Amino acid sequence: MRFSVQVDVSLREGVADPQGATIERSLPHLGFDGVTGVRVGKQIVFELDSTDEDAARSEVDDLCARFLTNPVIETARVTLSAVEGASR
Amino acid sequence: MRFSVQVDVSLREGVADPQGATIERSLPHLGFDGVTGVRVGKQIVFELDSTDEDAARSEVDDLCARFLTNPVIETARVTLSAVEGASR
Repeated sequence: MRFSVQVDVSLREGVADPQGATIERSLPHLGFDGVTGVRVGKQIVFELDSTDEDAARSEVDDLCARFLTNPVIETARVTLSAVEGASR
Repeated sequence: MRFSVQVDVSLREGVADPQGATIERSLPHLGFDGVTGVRVGKQIVFELDSTDEDAARSEVDDLCARFLTNPVIETARVTLSAVEGASR
């Protein structure tokens, strides 16, 4: 089965986010007020061939922990959905 | 009113994604097979004070076009929700 996978990687709460802080500091100069708590993360999307949903989810979790995120400072949220008409 | 805003910035289809290509090329060496079409984007979350939802949405669209994305090569998907108990 083929799955469409989206991994949202964000910094853990309390971890400094210089990129977000820079955006937040710049916005008032550009005329945007009232924006607070800016945090910047990564979004990784891909397609995955796997036997079933459980296997796919476990493979993605492993992938996140070992390669896509730094578990010390980042967390990942995984969204997984089967792609229709693409079984094999 | 206070809104919680999530902006997903992704490269337009057809635009080269070297970061995604590098991830895709590395995965088989790490034992992950069957991963294709890797695309990497940014996810920006923040809180916004605005008068109502329409004003907030229009401000975020403007912010995306002028500051958070490069509209030539990127698109933005905005998710906006009111934060409960934070009206002013």
